[in-house]
Formats: sequence, structure tokens, C-alpha cells
Amino acid sequence: MFKEKEITASIKTETKVPLGFRAGGIHCGIKRSRKDLALIVSDFPATAAAVFTTNKVQAAPVLVSKMVLAKSKFHKAIIVNSGNANACTGDNGYSDALRMINETAAELGIDANEIFVASTGVIGEPLPVEKIISGIHSVNSVLSGRDFTGAAEAIMTTDTFTKTVSSTFQIDGEEITIYGMAKGSGMIHPNMATMLGFVLTDAKIDKEIFQTLLKETTDKTFNRIIVDGDTSTNDMVIALANGASGATIIPQTESYRIFEEELYKILKSLSIDIVRDGEGATKLIEITVEGARTDEDAVKAARTIALSPLVKTAVHGEDANWGRIIAAVGYSKIDFDPEKFEIIINGVQILYQNYSVTLSNAEANQSLKSKNIYMTIRLNGGKGRATCWTCDLSAEYVKINGSYRS
Amino acid sequence: MFKEKEITASIKTETKVPLGFRAGGIHCGIKRSRKDLALIVSDFPATAAAVFTTNKVQAAPVLVSKMVLAKSKFHKAIIVNSGNANACTGDNGYSDALRMINETAAELGIDANEIFVASTGVIGEPLPVEKIISGIHSVNSVLSGRDFTGAAEAIMTTDTFTKTVSSTFQIDGEEITIYGMAKGSGMIHPNMATMLGFVLTDAKIDKEIFQTLLKETTDKTFNRIIVDGDTSTNDMVIALANGASGATIIPQTESYRIFEEELYKILKSLSIDIVRDGEGATKLIEITVEGARTDEDAVKAARTIALSPLVKTAVHGEDANWGRIIAAVGYSKIDFDPEKFEIIINGVQILYQNYSVTLSNAEANQSLKSKNIYMTIRLNGGKGRATCWTCDLSAEYVKINGSYRS
Repeated sequence: MFKEKEITASIKTETKVPLGFRAGGIHCGIKRSRKDLALIVSDFPATAAAVFTTNKVQAAPVLVSKMVLAKSKFHKAIIVNSGNANACTGDNGYSDALRMINETAAELGIDANEIFVASTGVIGEPLPVEKIISGIHSVNSVLSGRDFTGAAEAIMTTDTFTKTVSSTFQIDGEEITIYGMAKGSGMIHPNMATMLGFVLTDAKIDKEIFQTLLKETTDKTFNRIIVDGDTSTNDMVIALANGASGATIIPQTESYRIFEEELYKILKSLSIDIVRDGEGATKLIEITVEGARTDEDAVKAARTIALSPLVKTAVHGEDANWGRIIAAVGYSKIDFDPEKFEIIINGVQILYQNYSVTLSNAEANQSLKSKNIYMTIRLNGGKGRATCWTCDLSAEYVKINGSYRS
Repeated sequence: MFKEKEITASIKTETKVPLGFRAGGIHCGIKRSRKDLALIVSDFPATAAAVFTTNKVQAAPVLVSKMVLAKSKFHKAIIVNSGNANACTGDNGYSDALRMINETAAELGIDANEIFVASTGVIGEPLPVEKIISGIHSVNSVLSGRDFTGAAEAIMTTDTFTKTVSSTFQIDGEEITIYGMAKGSGMIHPNMATMLGFVLTDAKIDKEIFQTLLKETTDKTFNRIIVDGDTSTNDMVIALANGASGATIIPQTESYRIFEEELYKILKSLSIDIVRDGEGATKLIEITVEGARTDEDAVKAARTIALSPLVKTAVHGEDANWGRIIAAVGYSKIDFDPEKFEIIINGVQILYQNYSVTLSNAEANQSLKSKNIYMTIRLNGGKGRATCWTCDLSAEYVKINGSYRS
């Protein structure tokens, strides 16, 4: 269970940027007035790891970045636009994504295959690529400012706050920093949706090892957050490790264990920020399922609860309607004994085994009064355990999504 | 595609009741003032068919009715209460469900194993069984009124209108009637949720054949409606065929084909009524997917679209945001070529192949102005075809479900 302190830390605390990275964000004209173009550059060749959306429909920047990941051993930059997803845009969209990396390459004097491209925004509208191209020149000129906050702003869509976090720690006497920024607030699903995450570190780590580590950590963080069950066409997490700190991460040593733990904290913090910023969200819900037959079963149960509109509206209405929670696990397709079900919300046991209850409804509802809801489900049928994060479902969500495009 | 006329018919038209059935509904005191107890009786032994919720957590009346279905060759009655689901109520709940059939049996002078029991309402609260028992006596006394509308009212929870429909047709010169009533408005999912359906016919049909037919027809109707993706602990459809018309339905003959078609119409009409009455719904959406590789793929695609909160809120906001539709199919786990995707809404082609669009957003949005939305998705990749029904997602849904229990 994370602490109240830990959640807010990622938003309020000043972040530290790792050595050898620059970034900037500007307004290039896709959106009316807000920043919409970000560039992140490593001054040294970095090993890269990346995970991409599992949606069958993949936006042009996803296809291009996958190719770029495979084509080059080291990478140096990420160019990102918001306001237009460049998805369902056919061959023209693909050419536009290539143009974005080619123009950035020319501007920075590096190879196009060293540059990742990402886009987020409306699907199915042609990319205003000329605006982006002229923007790419301006972004480069502001890079000297190391404006990471500007970059974090420029990748936002319906986000209401920037999501950045960093961690600095020692390995073998060397100071290492991991920095992360993300965007995402709606359309979020375990399989990654309208969600971009960029992770930068000055540690040195082998490309293949980094890839495995990023994939595993993403599965436990970004793939465990649920806003509304929709999975987008554009999502990706890209991580760059440029080695500028002089410290190397070596598998099966203490350095790896520490780095893994810190990376997990960074991705978890960004994940929770995305949920907290869920469209129309008023409460953050952490759901931990314990005592499932397997960890996989625990994930299924936690996800099904997190996806249930009935549970999410009950939490919104501060109604400790435990029947909806047990019913959700009932259709999650896992094996369990309903009579052994226990529910604890914010430290208050709402349901004991054998459907036993000791509190009045009014007393139970008190457990839902706070902004952060920690829900623990004990199935008492094994050692499987998993945590997911979601938010409540409010009338505001409907308003935002009924009028997003128009 | 169903006709506007056809939809409203099920609500407005007077229904006809088959021969040899009686019904009544009263207020027994579970709810504050609305009817909450219904009894349906066949004057002749009827063959019964039934389908039950697939939720792992099954309410006591579901367990009892399953037993009753297996124990007796013929059945004569259905006793139903609303306002309390008798779910997650343990051994006491099971005894209470048995008491409901035993008291009804004593009152009617028939065997308890000839009586089905159903409950719907709040989960996890003890059943006020004494109120129900005294109510059972009153219900019997009003049965002479053949008050089917009263029974249809008494099974409602958050429903805003009663759902009844009938069809009368000829087989071999004999007149047959099929009558259906249902309740359900929220928590509806393809696998049947807080949904009760009772089908009565004066045809004669073999029990096993009736069971197969009911199961198949339910799969194409009640299991194709989606309100919010939640599946309840209590749902069942029970069908009784008492043979009072003198007509017999024989497999592999014209009689079977006609009966099958009429039964499908009845269940489809009730299904659409449930969607139309979806909590907070302002629009009915019929989603037909054509050109999938298989029918199963078409069902998966149609269901995923129907479940997507982003699609449902876009329809609510009358925003023809086709990117959300294609993205939903993208994560439905079926194989298709996104570039062959076509979308037609209410006769207007919103999207052509190769992501091609001929209308402005404002023009496309016109297609969503009406109350009934017929959405056709052409995948152009095979002969698979399926239809699902859902409703839009409104701010009202959140209000209803944030405060249902309190």
C-alpha cells in the first residue's frame, strides 16, 4: 500500500534531471494556444527500451518508432506532438511521421534512426505536418534552457497537470538519477492507452537487459491502471539510458536490484498520477487482491473490480455497496469461494467471511469519505496477490468525453 | 436492422396472454410503496426451460431454481420478489428461498418442485421473508384477475417502464401465443445481469428441445445487450410451455421454424426494451458488424464497441468520433485490416475504406441526432456477422448508480 505522502510527492516535489539530457516544449500551432511539441535529446548515445500499444490499430508514430528501435543500437532523441494522434491516417500519416524524424535529424545533426517519434490527440485527422516542421526548428533553439517542464506540458492532452518524477540514488559510490514524464488521463487501460511515458537515466545498461526490465516493470505499473477500459492506438513508453553518470547496471548484482526498484517507483508514481488525473476523477482507488489461487487470478480480479462502472460510481457516491465488489469478482472468471470473501476499505473491515457484516451502511460509508481509497479484497484461497489503480466514475467524465472533439 | 415501429410496438401495443396462465403482482412491503411480489401460474403442467447467470457468485433463488428445473418434469408456477436480491446471504438466504417455494406450494396446492423462485434488488441484505410469506397469500387471492401487468410491475427495480410483449400466430390451424415479460435496466451484460425474463406459451414442446431452443435464442438476444458491462448474481430467464392451445412444436418441421422465429422476436423485443431503459440512457444503439472472419469475431467486435465508454459518451454527445469506434475494434482481439474499415450510421457513411472521409465533422454529427442509432461496421474481411444493442452513457447513469442504495 502506498502512503498519502508518496502519492503527492510525485507532483509537488522538484524533480532532478539526469546528466547529459536536454528538453524543451513549445506551441507550434496544432492546438489553439497550449504547448504541443516536445523534444528530448541525449548528449550521448543512449541504449533505448520501449513498449508499445497492443491495439491492432497502430498509429504511424508507433510503427515508425518500432522500426527505429530495431534499426539502431543507440538512440539520441524523442520528438513528440500533442493535439493530433496521426492515427488512421494511412500512407500520408506514415510519411508525416518519417518527416518528423528526418527534420529533427537534420536540425540536430544526428541520424534519423536515432530518433523516436510519438503523437497523441485526435484520431483520423491529417497531421498538420508543416506546423510541426517549423516548430522543430524552434524547439531546438530552446533546448539550451533544459526546459523539461515545458516538454512535460507539451505532451499533455486532457491532462490537468504535468506528470514528472525523479529519483537520485547511489550505486557503487556513483550518483544515478532516473527521471520520468508522462501524459494520460482518459482512455487508460491495462494494455496502455492514450498514454505516453518517457524515462531518462544517466546510468549505463545493456539494451536487451533494459528492454526486459522496462517490459516487466511496465506490466506491474502502467498496465495496472484503469480509467475506462479503452485502449488507444498511440501509446508508448520509451526509456533512454546514456551512461553519463559513469555507473553501470549489471544483472544479478546489487546495482541491478537497486535500479529495478527505483525504476519501479518512478513508473508507479507516474501511473498513479495518470489515474489521479482520470477524466472527471474525484477519488483515487488502489485495489489489492490477496489470497487468490495465483498472482494472475489476483490481477484478473483486481482489474475486473477496477473496470466495473457500478463499483466506480458507488465509490463516487461514497456508498460502501460491497455486493457490487463481490459480484464483479464473480464475473472475473477466476475460481474462488464467495463465502470466504473479505473486504477492507481504508482500514475498516466492511465484510467478513460468510457474508458477515458488523457495521451499519452509514458506518461503512464513512470509509469512503476520503480522497484516496485503499481497498483490500481477501479471497482466502491461496497466495496470489496483485494491485491495480483506478479512479471513481463521475458525471464529469461523461461531459468531457461527450464533447472532447467538438 | 429493426424498424422504429418494431421497437415501440413492444411498449405500446396491448399484449395477449396465452391460454391457461394466470398472474398477479402486489405490494408486500419490501419496497416502500411500489409492487414487489409477483406470481405466475400455469393451470396445466408445463414443460420448462431456463437459463441462469454465469456469475460465480449465485444468489439463493438461482441455486434453488436450478435444482427445481432438474427435479421436476413439469412445472406450474414462478414466484418473484423485487427490492432484495437474496444474494450473498448464506445459508439463511437459501432457507428463505426454499420457504418461498414451499409457502407458494401450500397456497396453490401443488408440489414445491414445480415452482421457480426469482429475486432482484440489493445484494447482501437479509431477505424480509415474513413480509413475502404473508404477501404470497394475497397474491394468490388476486390471481383470478389475470393481472399480468401487475406482475410485470412487481418485478421492476430501477426500471422506468414495464416490459411486456406477445405474439400470436398459427401452426397447423391452431392459434399459439407467446408472451414475455422482463425487468432490467442497469448492470446489464451479455452474460445476463440483473435481468429477469419470463416467457409463457400455450404451445406444447418437449422439455429438452425447449431448453436447447431457449439457450440458443437467449445467446442471440439477452446475451447481446450491454449497458455497462457488469454481470449480476441473480439473473434468469424462465420459459413455460403448457400446451393449452393444442398445438405441438415438432423439431425439423415448419412448426418448429415458425415457433423459433416468434420466440426470437419476443426475446429480441424484451432485450431492446431493457437497453432502451438503460440507466440514464437517452439513445438506443444497434451495432451490426459485417464482414468479420467469423460470426464469433463479429460478436467480439460488436460487444467491444458496445462496451466502450468512449464510444457511448461520444454518441451521447452526438459526436461522430469514428476514431473511437475503430480503436475499440482494435483492442477487441480479432483479426482485421483497419484500412478496410467502413462505418455507416443511420444510413450515412461516416468512414470509407483507406480511412477516407467525405463529410465534415458537423455533417457527420447529424447522423447521431436521432434517438435510435443504427451503426453498421463493415470489416470487409469475411462473412461473419453479428448485432448487439446498447445505449449511450450519460451523466444521469452516474447519478443513479452513485446513490442507488442510500
